[in-house]
Amino acid sequence: MSGRFLVLEGIDGCGKTTQIEALRAWLPLSGLMAPDSRLVVTREPGGTALGQALRALLLHPPDGVAPGSLCELMLYAADRAQHVEECLRPALAAGDWVLSDRYSGSTAAYQGHGRGLPMATIHQLEAMATGGLEPDLTLWLDLPLAGSLRRRGGRPADRIEATGEAFLQRVSDGFATLAAERGWQRVAAGGPIEQVTAHCRTLITEHLGAADARGHG
Amino acid sequence: MSGRFLVLEGIDGCGKTTQIEALRAWLPLSGLMAPDSRLVVTREPGGTALGQALRALLLHPPDGVAPGSLCELMLYAADRAQHVEECLRPALAAGDWVLSDRYSGSTAAYQGHGRGLPMATIHQLEAMATGGLEPDLTLWLDLPLAGSLRRRGGRPADRIEATGEAFLQRVSDGFATLAAERGWQRVAAGGPIEQVTAHCRTLITEHLGAADARGHG
Repeated sequence: MSGRFLVLEGIDGCGKTTQIEALRAWLPLSGLMAPDSRLVVTREPGGTALGQALRALLLHPPDGVAPGSLCELMLYAADRAQHVEECLRPALAAGDWVLSDRYSGSTAAYQGHGRGLPMATIHQLEAMATGGLEPDLTLWLDLPLAGSLRRRGGRPADRIEATGEAFLQRVSDGFATLAAERGWQRVAAGGPIEQVTAHCRTLITEHLGAADARGHG
Repeated sequence: MSGRFLVLEGIDGCGKTTQIEALRAWLPLSGLMAPDSRLVVTREPGGTALGQALRALLLHPPDGVAPGSLCELMLYAADRAQHVEECLRPALAAGDWVLSDRYSGSTAAYQGHGRGLPMATIHQLEAMATGGLEPDLTLWLDLPLAGSLRRRGGRPADRIEATGEAFLQRVSDGFATLAAERGWQRVAAGGPIEQVTAHCRTLITEHLGAADARGHG
Protein backbone atom coordinates (compact mmCIF):
# COMPACT_ATOMS: atom_id res chain seq x y z
CA MET A 1 0.00 0.00 0.00
CA SER A 2 1.52 3.32 -1.07
CA GLY A 3 1.48 6.49 0.99
CA ARG A 4 -1.20 9.13 1.22
CA PHE A 5 -0.73 12.89 0.87
CA LEU A 6 -3.02 15.04 2.98
CA VAL A 7 -2.93 18.84 3.02
CA LEU A 8 -4.58 21.44 5.26
CA GLU A 9 -5.21 24.83 3.69
CA GLY A 10 -6.75 28.07 4.95
CA ILE A 11 -5.99 31.60 6.08
CA ASP A 12 -3.75 32.24 9.06
CA GLY A 13 -5.66 31.87 12.29
CA CYS A 14 -8.07 29.29 10.85
CA GLY A 15 -6.81 26.63 13.25
CA LYS A 16 -4.55 24.58 10.97
CA THR A 17 -1.84 24.19 13.59
CA THR A 18 -4.27 22.96 16.24
CA GLN A 19 -5.95 20.52 13.86
CA ILE A 20 -2.64 19.20 12.60
CA GLU A 21 -1.60 18.40 16.18
CA ALA A 22 -4.94 16.61 16.73
CA LEU A 23 -4.53 14.63 13.49
CA ARG A 24 -0.90 13.83 14.30
CA ALA A 25 -2.14 12.09 17.45
CA TRP A 26 -5.13 10.39 15.81
CA LEU A 27 -3.91 9.20 12.41
CA PRO A 28 -1.47 6.49 13.58
CA LEU A 29 -4.30 5.05 15.74
CA SER A 30 -7.01 5.49 13.10
CA GLY A 31 -6.60 2.11 11.44
CA LEU A 32 -6.23 3.88 8.09
CA MET A 33 -2.45 3.64 7.90
CA ALA A 34 -0.64 0.39 7.20
CA PRO A 35 1.11 -0.89 10.35
CA ASP A 36 4.55 -0.15 8.95
CA SER A 37 3.67 3.32 7.62
CA ARG A 38 5.10 6.36 9.32
CA LEU A 39 3.31 9.70 9.57
CA VAL A 40 5.38 12.62 8.27
CA VAL A 41 4.09 15.99 9.45
CA THR A 42 5.50 18.87 7.44
CA ARG A 43 4.75 22.35 6.18
CA GLU A 44 5.30 24.97 3.49
CA PRO A 45 7.28 27.06 3.46
CA GLY A 46 9.97 25.43 5.55
CA GLY A 47 9.58 21.66 5.23
CA THR A 48 13.31 21.17 4.57
CA ALA A 49 16.50 22.63 6.03
CA LEU A 50 16.87 24.89 2.98
CA GLY A 51 13.17 25.70 3.20
CA GLN A 52 13.62 26.97 6.75
CA ALA A 53 16.13 29.52 5.49
CA LEU A 54 13.67 30.53 2.73
CA ARG A 55 10.79 30.69 5.24
CA ALA A 56 12.78 33.16 7.33
CA LEU A 57 13.45 35.35 4.26
CA LEU A 58 9.79 35.19 3.20
CA LEU A 59 8.04 35.74 6.53
CA HIS A 60 10.53 37.61 8.69
CA PRO A 61 13.04 39.31 6.37
CA PRO A 62 15.58 41.79 7.76
CA ASP A 63 14.88 45.46 6.94
CA GLY A 64 15.34 46.24 3.26
CA VAL A 65 15.44 42.59 2.21
CA ALA A 66 11.74 41.92 1.51
CA PRO A 67 11.15 40.32 -1.90
CA GLY A 68 8.95 41.86 -4.59
CA SER A 69 5.83 39.93 -5.61
CA LEU A 70 7.43 37.94 -8.44
CA CYS A 71 10.56 37.10 -6.46
CA GLU A 72 8.32 36.04 -3.57
CA LEU A 73 6.37 33.73 -5.87
CA MET A 74 9.61 32.15 -7.10
CA LEU A 75 10.92 31.66 -3.57
CA TYR A 76 7.73 29.79 -2.65
CA ALA A 77 8.20 27.67 -5.79
CA ALA A 78 11.84 27.00 -4.85
CA ASP A 79 10.81 25.95 -1.35
CA ARG A 80 8.16 23.65 -2.86
CA ALA A 81 10.52 22.07 -5.38
CA GLN A 82 12.95 21.16 -2.60
CA HIS A 83 10.09 19.94 -0.38
CA VAL A 84 8.72 17.69 -3.13
CA GLU A 85 12.13 16.24 -3.99
CA GLU A 86 13.64 15.87 -0.54
CA CYS A 87 10.62 15.13 1.63
CA LEU A 88 7.27 14.42 -0.08
CA ARG A 89 8.19 12.04 -2.90
CA PRO A 90 10.56 9.87 -0.83
CA ALA A 91 8.00 9.60 1.98
CA LEU A 92 5.13 8.69 -0.34
CA ALA A 93 7.32 6.23 -2.25
CA ALA A 94 8.16 4.54 1.07
CA GLY A 95 4.46 4.13 1.80
CA ASP A 96 4.35 6.79 4.50
CA TRP A 97 1.52 9.21 5.08
CA VAL A 98 2.25 12.89 4.75
CA LEU A 99 0.29 15.63 6.50
CA SER A 100 1.31 19.08 5.26
CA ASP A 101 0.43 22.50 6.64
CA ARG A 102 -0.12 24.24 3.26
CA TYR A 103 0.91 23.27 -0.28
CA SER A 104 0.51 24.81 -3.73
CA GLY A 105 -3.07 25.94 -3.02
CA SER A 106 -1.73 28.55 -0.61
CA THR A 107 0.45 30.05 -3.34
CA ALA A 108 -2.56 30.30 -5.64
CA ALA A 109 -4.53 31.96 -2.82
CA TYR A 110 -1.92 34.40 -1.47
CA GLN A 111 0.20 35.22 -4.54
CA GLY A 112 -2.54 34.70 -7.15
CA HIS A 113 -5.79 35.93 -5.61
CA GLY A 114 -4.11 38.08 -2.95
CA ARG A 115 -1.25 39.77 -4.80
CA GLY A 116 -2.90 39.54 -8.21
CA LEU A 117 -0.04 37.77 -9.99
CA PRO A 118 -1.17 36.10 -13.24
CA MET A 119 -2.68 32.66 -12.65
CA ALA A 120 -0.93 31.38 -15.79
CA THR A 121 2.45 32.16 -14.19
CA ILE A 122 1.34 30.57 -10.91
CA HIS A 123 0.22 27.41 -12.69
CA GLN A 124 3.48 27.16 -14.69
CA LEU A 125 5.57 27.42 -11.53
CA GLU A 126 3.29 25.01 -9.67
CA ALA A 127 3.65 22.42 -12.43
CA MET A 128 7.45 22.82 -12.42
CA ALA A 129 7.82 22.68 -8.64
CA THR A 130 5.44 19.79 -7.97
CA GLY A 131 6.15 17.76 -11.11
CA GLY A 132 2.45 16.94 -10.99
CA LEU A 133 2.39 15.68 -7.39
CA GLU A 134 -1.10 16.44 -6.07
CA PRO A 135 -2.56 15.78 -2.63
CA ASP A 136 -4.88 12.80 -2.23
CA LEU A 137 -7.03 15.04 -0.05
CA THR A 138 -7.03 18.74 0.75
CA LEU A 139 -9.03 19.95 3.74
CA TRP A 140 -9.91 23.63 3.60
CA LEU A 141 -10.45 25.05 7.08
CA ASP A 142 -12.95 27.78 6.33
CA LEU A 143 -13.01 30.56 8.89
CA PRO A 144 -14.35 33.99 7.88
CA LEU A 145 -11.63 36.62 7.95
CA ALA A 146 -13.25 38.51 10.84
CA GLY A 147 -12.99 35.39 12.97
CA SER A 148 -9.36 34.90 12.05
CA LEU A 149 -8.46 38.50 12.91
CA ARG A 150 -10.35 38.25 16.21
CA ARG A 151 -8.52 35.05 17.17
CA ARG A 152 -5.19 36.72 16.61
CA GLY A 153 -6.17 39.93 18.38
CA GLY A 154 -5.48 41.88 15.19
CA ARG A 155 -1.73 41.25 15.39
CA PRO A 156 -0.19 40.23 12.07
CA ALA A 157 1.77 37.00 12.40
CA ASP A 158 4.38 37.84 9.75
CA ARG A 159 5.25 39.97 6.70
CA ILE A 160 2.57 38.38 4.52
CA GLU A 161 -0.15 38.88 7.11
CA ALA A 162 0.96 42.47 7.62
CA THR A 163 0.02 43.30 4.01
CA GLY A 164 -3.39 44.45 5.19
CA GLU A 165 -7.03 43.49 5.52
CA ALA A 166 -8.06 44.07 1.88
CA PHE A 167 -5.29 41.70 0.80
CA LEU A 168 -6.35 39.11 3.39
CA GLN A 169 -9.96 39.37 2.23
CA ARG A 170 -8.89 38.60 -1.35
CA VAL A 171 -6.90 35.63 -0.04
CA SER A 172 -9.88 34.43 1.97
CA ASP A 173 -12.20 34.71 -1.04
CA GLY A 174 -9.50 33.04 -3.13
CA PHE A 175 -9.49 29.96 -0.89
CA ALA A 176 -13.25 29.59 -1.48
CA THR A 177 -12.77 29.84 -5.25
CA LEU A 178 -9.89 27.38 -5.21
CA ALA A 179 -11.82 24.90 -3.06
CA ALA A 180 -14.53 24.79 -5.72
CA GLU A 181 -12.06 24.59 -8.61
CA ARG A 182 -9.80 21.97 -7.08
CA GLY A 183 -12.29 19.76 -5.29
CA TRP A 184 -11.07 20.53 -1.76
CA GLN A 185 -13.20 19.40 1.17
CA ARG A 186 -14.55 22.29 3.21
CA VAL A 187 -14.44 22.14 7.00
CA ALA A 188 -16.30 24.89 8.86
CA ALA A 189 -13.59 26.05 11.24
CA GLY A 190 -15.50 28.47 13.47
CA GLY A 191 -16.94 25.93 15.94
CA PRO A 192 -15.42 24.15 18.96
CA ILE A 193 -12.02 22.57 18.28
CA GLU A 194 -13.28 19.02 18.96
CA GLN A 195 -16.11 19.45 16.47
CA VAL A 196 -13.69 20.65 13.77
CA THR A 197 -11.39 17.71 14.49
CA ALA A 198 -14.29 15.27 14.27
CA HIS A 199 -15.24 16.67 10.86
CA CYS A 200 -11.63 16.36 9.65
CA ARG A 201 -11.49 12.74 10.86
CA THR A 202 -14.73 11.90 9.08
CA LEU A 203 -13.54 13.38 5.79
CA ILE A 204 -10.17 11.65 6.03
CA THR A 205 -11.80 8.30 6.72
CA GLU A 206 -14.23 8.76 3.83
CA HIS A 207 -11.61 9.86 1.32
CA LEU A 208 -8.47 8.00 2.40
CA GLY A 209 -9.94 4.76 3.67
CA ALA A 210 -8.69 1.52 2.14
CA ALA A 211 -11.65 1.30 -0.26
CA ASP A 212 -10.37 4.45 -1.94
CA ALA A 213 -6.77 3.23 -2.20
CA ARG A 214 -4.93 4.86 -5.08
CA GLY A 215 -1.31 4.52 -6.03
CA HIS A 216 1.34 7.19 -6.50
CA GLY A 217 3.44 7.28 -9.67
CA MET B 1 19.29 59.09 -24.09
CA SER B 2 18.23 55.95 -22.25
CA GLY B 3 20.56 53.64 -20.38
CA ARG B 4 22.57 50.74 -21.71
CA PHE B 5 22.73 47.24 -20.30
CA LEU B 6 26.06 45.47 -20.64
CA VAL B 7 26.74 41.93 -19.37
CA LEU B 8 29.92 39.90 -18.97
CA GLU B 9 29.54 36.12 -19.14
CA GLY B 10 31.96 33.23 -18.87
CA ILE B 11 33.18 30.41 -16.63
CA ASP B 12 34.67 31.16 -13.23
CA GLY B 13 38.31 32.15 -13.56
CA CYS B 14 37.83 33.67 -17.02
CA GLY B 15 38.74 37.13 -15.72
CA LYS B 16 35.31 38.75 -15.46
CA THR B 17 36.07 40.43 -12.15
CA THR B 18 39.31 41.95 -13.42
CA GLN B 19 37.71 43.18 -16.63
CA ILE B 20 34.73 44.63 -14.79
CA GLU B 21 37.07 46.69 -12.62
CA ALA B 22 38.90 47.92 -15.73
CA LEU B 23 35.61 48.82 -17.44
CA ARG B 24 34.31 50.48 -14.27
CA ALA B 25 37.27 52.86 -14.48
CA TRP B 26 37.10 53.38 -18.24
CA LEU B 27 33.38 53.66 -19.07
CA PRO B 28 32.67 57.01 -17.34
CA LEU B 29 35.64 58.51 -19.23
CA SER B 30 34.87 56.78 -22.54
CA GLY B 31 32.65 59.49 -23.99
CA LEU B 32 29.95 56.86 -24.58
CA MET B 33 27.85 57.72 -21.54
CA ALA B 34 25.76 60.87 -21.34
CA PRO B 35 27.30 63.37 -18.89
CA ASP B 36 24.52 62.86 -16.35
CA SER B 37 24.46 59.05 -16.61
CA ARG B 38 25.70 57.00 -13.71
CA LEU B 39 27.44 53.63 -14.07
CA VAL B 40 25.83 50.88 -12.00
CA VAL B 41 28.09 47.86 -11.52
CA THR B 42 26.21 44.81 -10.31
CA ARG B 43 26.14 41.03 -10.41
CA GLU B 44 24.09 37.86 -10.31
CA PRO B 45 23.44 36.26 -8.01
CA GLY B 46 23.55 38.92 -5.31
CA GLY B 47 22.79 42.27 -6.96
CA THR B 48 20.26 43.19 -4.26
CA ALA B 49 20.14 42.86 -0.47
CA LEU B 50 17.80 39.88 -0.80
CA GLY B 51 20.00 38.51 -3.57
CA GLN B 52 23.00 38.51 -1.24
CA ALA B 53 21.12 36.20 1.11
CA LEU B 54 20.23 33.96 -1.84
CA ARG B 55 23.82 34.05 -3.11
CA ALA B 56 25.04 32.76 0.23
CA LEU B 57 22.50 29.90 0.13
CA LEU B 58 23.43 29.04 -3.47
CA LEU B 59 27.21 29.25 -3.31
CA HIS B 60 28.11 28.62 0.33
CA PRO B 61 25.20 26.77 1.96
CA PRO B 62 25.55 25.34 5.46
CA ASP B 63 25.87 21.54 5.65
CA GLY B 64 22.67 19.76 4.68
CA VAL B 65 21.09 22.86 3.17
CA ALA B 66 22.24 22.59 -0.46
CA PRO B 67 19.38 22.92 -2.97
CA GLY B 68 18.50 20.26 -5.53
CA SER B 69 18.85 21.18 -9.21
CA LEU B 70 15.30 22.44 -9.71
CA CYS B 71 15.24 24.40 -6.47
CA GLU B 72 18.63 25.88 -7.41
CA LEU B 73 17.24 26.98 -10.78
CA MET B 74 14.29 28.65 -9.09
CA LEU B 75 16.50 30.45 -6.60
CA TYR B 76 18.55 31.90 -9.46
CA ALA B 77 15.28 32.99 -11.08
CA ALA B 78 14.11 34.58 -7.82
CA ASP B 79 17.40 36.44 -7.48
CA ARG B 80 17.05 37.65 -11.08
CA ALA B 81 13.43 38.76 -10.69
CA GLN B 82 14.39 40.92 -7.71
CA HIS B 83 17.49 42.23 -9.52
CA VAL B 84 15.45 43.23 -12.58
CA GLU B 85 12.73 44.92 -10.53
CA GLU B 86 14.82 46.63 -7.86
CA CYS B 87 18.05 47.44 -9.70
CA LEU B 88 18.17 46.96 -13.48
CA ARG B 89 14.89 48.48 -14.69
CA PRO B 90 15.05 51.58 -12.46
CA ALA B 91 18.68 52.23 -13.46
CA LEU B 92 17.99 51.84 -17.19
CA ALA B 93 14.84 53.95 -16.93
CA ALA B 94 16.90 56.70 -15.30
CA GLY B 95 19.31 56.64 -18.25
CA ASP B 96 22.12 54.97 -16.32
CA TRP B 97 24.49 52.37 -17.70
CA VAL B 98 24.50 48.97 -16.09
CA LEU B 99 27.46 46.60 -16.11
CA SER B 100 26.52 43.18 -14.73
CA ASP B 101 28.76 40.26 -13.80
CA ARG B 102 26.50 37.47 -15.21
CA TYR B 103 22.82 37.48 -16.20
CA SER B 104 20.39 34.90 -17.57
CA GLY B 105 23.00 33.43 -19.92
CA SER B 106 24.83 31.97 -16.92
CA THR B 107 21.69 30.13 -15.81
CA ALA B 108 21.32 28.62 -19.29
CA ALA B 109 25.00 27.59 -19.20
CA TYR B 110 25.26 26.21 -15.64
CA GLN B 111 21.75 24.88 -14.94
CA GLY B 112 20.84 24.05 -18.55
CA HIS B 113 24.00 22.79 -20.25
CA GLY B 114 25.78 21.92 -16.99
CA ARG B 115 23.09 20.29 -14.86
CA GLY B 116 21.01 19.14 -17.82
CA LEU B 117 17.74 20.76 -16.74
CA PRO B 118 15.26 21.12 -19.63
CA MET B 119 15.90 24.22 -21.72
CA ALA B 120 12.13 24.77 -22.03
CA THR B 121 11.92 25.15 -18.24
CA ILE B 122 14.95 27.44 -18.22
CA HIS B 123 13.45 29.64 -20.93
CA GLN B 124 10.08 29.85 -19.15
CA LEU B 125 11.73 30.97 -15.91
CA GLU B 126 14.02 33.38 -17.76
CA ALA B 127 11.03 35.01 -19.47
CA MET B 128 9.20 35.32 -16.14
CA ALA B 129 12.17 36.69 -14.22
CA THR B 130 13.40 39.17 -16.81
CA GLY B 131 10.03 40.22 -18.23
CA GLY B 132 11.85 40.35 -21.55
CA LEU B 133 14.69 42.63 -20.42
CA GLU B 134 17.70 41.70 -22.55
CA PRO B 135 21.22 43.12 -22.48
CA ASP B 136 22.20 45.59 -25.19
CA LEU B 137 25.52 43.79 -25.34
CA THR B 138 26.88 40.57 -23.85
CA LEU B 139 30.62 40.01 -23.85
CA TRP B 140 31.63 36.38 -23.50
CA LEU B 141 35.08 36.03 -21.99
CA ASP B 142 36.23 32.80 -23.59
CA LEU B 143 38.91 30.98 -21.64
CA PRO B 144 39.35 27.22 -22.16
CA LEU B 145 38.52 25.27 -19.02
CA ALA B 146 42.11 24.12 -18.52
CA GLY B 147 43.22 27.75 -18.34
CA SER B 148 40.50 28.58 -15.84
CA LEU B 149 41.43 25.66 -13.57
CA ARG B 150 45.12 26.58 -13.78
CA ARG B 151 44.42 30.19 -12.81
CA ARG B 152 42.54 29.05 -9.74
CA GLY B 153 45.14 26.47 -8.78
CA GLY B 154 42.48 23.75 -8.99
CA ARG B 155 40.64 25.06 -5.93
CA PRO B 156 36.86 25.28 -6.42
CA ALA B 157 35.57 28.77 -5.63
CA ASP B 158 32.17 27.63 -4.32
CA ARG B 159 29.55 24.84 -4.27
CA ILE B 160 28.77 25.16 -7.99
CA GLU B 161 32.44 25.00 -8.99
CA ALA B 162 32.94 22.02 -6.71
CA THR B 163 30.53 19.94 -8.82
CA GLY B 164 33.46 18.62 -10.83
CA GLU B 165 35.38 18.95 -14.05
CA ALA B 166 32.93 17.09 -16.35
CA PHE B 167 30.20 19.48 -15.21
CA LEU B 168 32.46 22.49 -15.79
CA GLN B 169 33.35 21.24 -19.26
CA ARG B 170 29.64 21.05 -20.16
CA VAL B 171 29.21 24.59 -18.84
CA SER B 172 32.19 25.80 -20.84
CA ASP B 173 30.88 24.18 -24.04
CA GLY B 174 27.45 25.58 -23.19
CA PHE B 175 28.79 29.14 -23.16
CA ALA B 176 30.10 28.63 -26.70
CA THR B 177 26.73 27.31 -27.87
CA LEU B 178 24.86 30.15 -26.18
CA ALA B 179 27.19 32.77 -27.63
CA ALA B 180 26.30 31.56 -31.13
CA GLU B 181 22.57 31.30 -30.37
CA ARG B 182 22.25 34.63 -28.60
CA GLY B 183 24.62 36.81 -30.61
CA TRP B 184 27.12 37.40 -27.80
CA GLN B 185 30.46 38.98 -28.66
CA ARG B 186 33.41 36.68 -28.00
CA VAL B 187 36.51 38.00 -26.30
CA ALA B 188 39.52 35.66 -26.20
CA ALA B 189 40.37 35.82 -22.51
CA GLY B 190 43.65 33.90 -22.39
CA GLY B 191 45.99 36.77 -23.32
CA PRO B 192 47.44 39.63 -21.27
CA ILE B 193 44.87 41.53 -19.17
CA GLU B 194 45.45 44.82 -21.04
CA GLN B 195 44.85 43.13 -24.39
CA VAL B 196 41.57 41.62 -23.15
CA THR B 197 40.48 45.01 -21.82
CA ALA B 198 41.32 46.69 -25.12
CA HIS B 199 39.18 44.15 -26.99
CA CYS B 200 36.28 44.72 -24.57
CA ARG B 201 36.57 48.51 -25.04
CA THR B 202 36.55 48.15 -28.83
CA LEU B 203 33.44 45.95 -28.80
CA ILE B 204 31.62 48.26 -26.38
CA THR B 205 32.43 51.31 -28.50
CA GLU B 206 31.31 49.53 -31.67
CA HIS B 207 28.06 48.21 -30.21
CA LEU B 208 27.04 50.85 -27.67
CA GLY B 209 28.27 54.00 -29.35
CA ALA B 210 25.77 56.79 -29.97
CA ALA B 211 25.20 55.70 -33.58
CA ASP B 212 23.75 52.47 -32.23
CA ALA B 213 21.47 54.21 -29.72
CA ARG B 214 18.42 52.11 -28.91
CA GLY B 215 15.73 52.81 -26.36
CA HIS B 216 14.48 50.65 -23.55
CA GLY B 217 10.75 50.01 -23.18
